[in-house]
Amino acid sequence: MAKKNAFYAQSGGVTAVINASACGLIETARQHKDKIGKVYAGRNGIIGALTEDLIDTSKDTAKAIAALRYTPSGAFGSCRFKMKSLEENKLQYERLIEVFKAHNIGYFFYNGGGDSADTCLKVSQLSEKMGYPIQAVHVPKTVDNDLPITDNCPGFGSVAKYIAVSTLEATFDVASMAKTSTKVFVLEVMGRHAGWIAAAGALASSADAEQPIVILFPEVVFNKEKFLARVDELVKKFGYCTVVVSEGVQSADGKFLADQGLKDAFGHSQLGGVAPVVANIIREGLGLKYHWGVADYLQRAARHIASKSDVDQAYAMGKAAVEFALKGHNSVMPTIERVSNKPYKWKVGMAPLNKVANVEKMMPKNFIAKDGFGITDKCREYLAPLIKGEDYPPYKDGLPQYVRLKNVAVPKKLGEFKI
Amino acid sequence: MAKKNAFYAQSGGVTAVINASACGLIETARQHKDKIGKVYAGRNGIIGALTEDLIDTSKDTAKAIAALRYTPSGAFGSCRFKMKSLEENKLQYERLIEVFKAHNIGYFFYNGGGDSADTCLKVSQLSEKMGYPIQAVHVPKTVDNDLPITDNCPGFGSVAKYIAVSTLEATFDVASMAKTSTKVFVLEVMGRHAGWIAAAGALASSADAEQPIVILFPEVVFNKEKFLARVDELVKKFGYCTVVVSEGVQSADGKFLADQGLKDAFGHSQLGGVAPVVANIIREGLGLKYHWGVADYLQRAARHIASKSDVDQAYAMGKAAVEFALKGHNSVMPTIERVSNKPYKWKVGMAPLNKVANVEKMMPKNFIAKDGFGITDKCREYLAPLIKGEDYPPYKDGLPQYVRLKNVAVPKKLGEFKI
Repeated sequence: MAKKNAFYAQSGGVTAVINASACGLIETARQHKDKIGKVYAGRNGIIGALTEDLIDTSKDTAKAIAALRYTPSGAFGSCRFKMKSLEENKLQYERLIEVFKAHNIGYFFYNGGGDSADTCLKVSQLSEKMGYPIQAVHVPKTVDNDLPITDNCPGFGSVAKYIAVSTLEATFDVASMAKTSTKVFVLEVMGRHAGWIAAAGALASSADAEQPIVILFPEVVFNKEKFLARVDELVKKFGYCTVVVSEGVQSADGKFLADQGLKDAFGHSQLGGVAPVVANIIREGLGLKYHWGVADYLQRAARHIASKSDVDQAYAMGKAAVEFALKGHNSVMPTIERVSNKPYKWKVGMAPLNKVANVEKMMPKNFIAKDGFGITDKCREYLAPLIKGEDYPPYKDGLPQYVRLKNVAVPKKLGEFKI
Repeated sequence: MAKKNAFYAQSGGVTAVINASACGLIETARQHKDKIGKVYAGRNGIIGALTEDLIDTSKDTAKAIAALRYTPSGAFGSCRFKMKSLEENKLQYERLIEVFKAHNIGYFFYNGGGDSADTCLKVSQLSEKMGYPIQAVHVPKTVDNDLPITDNCPGFGSVAKYIAVSTLEATFDVASMAKTSTKVFVLEVMGRHAGWIAAAGALASSADAEQPIVILFPEVVFNKEKFLARVDELVKKFGYCTVVVSEGVQSADGKFLADQGLKDAFGHSQLGGVAPVVANIIREGLGLKYHWGVADYLQRAARHIASKSDVDQAYAMGKAAVEFALKGHNSVMPTIERVSNKPYKWKVGMAPLNKVANVEKMMPKNFIAKDGFGITDKCREYLAPLIKGEDYPPYKDGLPQYVRLKNVAVPKKLGEFKI
């Protein structure tokens, strides 16, 4: 077999460690120059492949590629672009194969969540049919931690660490202020469908250092009376509390709590977060002084406080993807297999893509405490190792030295393609 | 002179490093046991003194006190409680002296901002008149960076670092998403009266790595058209931008931009932040997709990303306060004097309290760029050293090992006092 090039693209919401996967993948590919030619990255994800906007990663130095390990965000650009089904838009898939053929690409590495796994699977299937076989390997990534089979998803551990640390720090803050001022701090976190990230807030409290923390999960229908009773109980006991609320919390009517139909002075509707809504409920129900914060992008971009477990695993996934491809595997995804909790040990596993694509892993019911406002020991056992260890980026003059790659374009060989 | 005890209290909004000042103060006092008896801390600030709710810091081990250096928030509790003027409520001041007398307290250390400096001054003045002299030394603290004479205020550098790092990380994130999704990220930061904290967001961009960042200062009247034009310009050039907005930004009518009179579906008024307001202005004016975050307490509690300059200075201020007192100084505050920028050097100075109390230092006009949306080189020169260096807390199982002190109460000797 003639030496083939590889294609790599980042998909969906970026994370603090998706570039660590890119780093593992590119560094490993560079160690196998006898078998893999160049690694071409899609500029802005799969759109780069469709529009033949490829980046020649060989133009960036080993030092720059190594710096990806500690640089958050997607170095080649990501995209929110879901490929349609094969039936609906076969042209798009055919175009992908056409581009891969034109650039002698034999390996397709797609770094993303469930939707991307599906795309990855289809590319592999179609390429065979079209007589230009491509080995497609999916590299797992999602802060939502919702991919099946793998024990956890790269990207999640670092968000979880950020939320756990921030919740701890904010709780210390409100504890200091509670006597005469703020008694409740409300922190809004990501996770529209699953409460994994919100659950991480509960790690700030432990058996030997209890903190008054209330978690609002998207899995638990919001019950105002029960919620206020819980906050009241904690404030009476501790003098203060912190509420970690998932953006996806819904009320009994199935509406997001955040969508309260807010209007400004001119009658324009106002898109708010859920944190101010929850804060208002506390003010109206209990008359307590509050502060609220919305972490938003900060939580998933916070490479400065990334989890070492997460960085190591993200790198390992990128590395394993190349190794799988070199061993001839196709339509697979490397996974993280938990070996033991104490000490935390894990190894790389492999999952067939047809078992991964479009399957969403929800938080197990027995991870949520009976009252709906906290996590169980089982959940804590699962989460704790994922935030373990620090992996600080290098700093200069007080700022992390994140890298911007050159991202040199590969000359185009084909005509334009409208997407 | 018989050996006197010392009183220490924390005042106002807490910071990531106010406990480092407490640490410097208590450790230094412990080194001078021949001259200073015990350090009593006010539980919840000055309220602890008024209600004779004192904490015996000698009950906590050297190890616990050392851990204050890396523990955010106020370990003894702070308060938002402004002493009235001497004329209005002489009883309160007299009560303070009474409590100090009862517990043989000869040193009054007050750790706070401008209001606290005023209280500190008055205590010193009144105590002399009442024939029970107290040496009063103010320990500077405020994330607002608004105390006069001192080059900067402990607490500010760490917030500035948090905002600079977070702005950098969020800008990397939005850069990755901009092609198909979010083009503008809006980050709300503290600083109701002065734009020091917002200015720190501009440190994320530098000459050799320019980032598209717009700063909205409270010092600059919000001009919607100019603002939208600037965002539009940056998004056209870079594809994306980040807006760092101070909570104190006002429109031409003198109203806070955050106070837009929002109402929920039931007509209840809704307290919002300024970030969603600015995000809405961008959506309506330019039709761009946005995300927004509100750092709130996270920014001032973020000891995990504290500035080493700031931690060192906070510790030095606490230490100097004791040294000043031991040298017989009264009604003074230790200050930070900048010696040079490159390399950054500073030393401890001293300011008389009557020059500090109730004087607010605003951001110099020549620190804000001509267009009102950025900082000047002069401002950058000033800010850059303040975020220099990292000073990580120790971690266990993925979480910072912040300390909770025992905070053992000193037995009361006096009757109750209503405040």
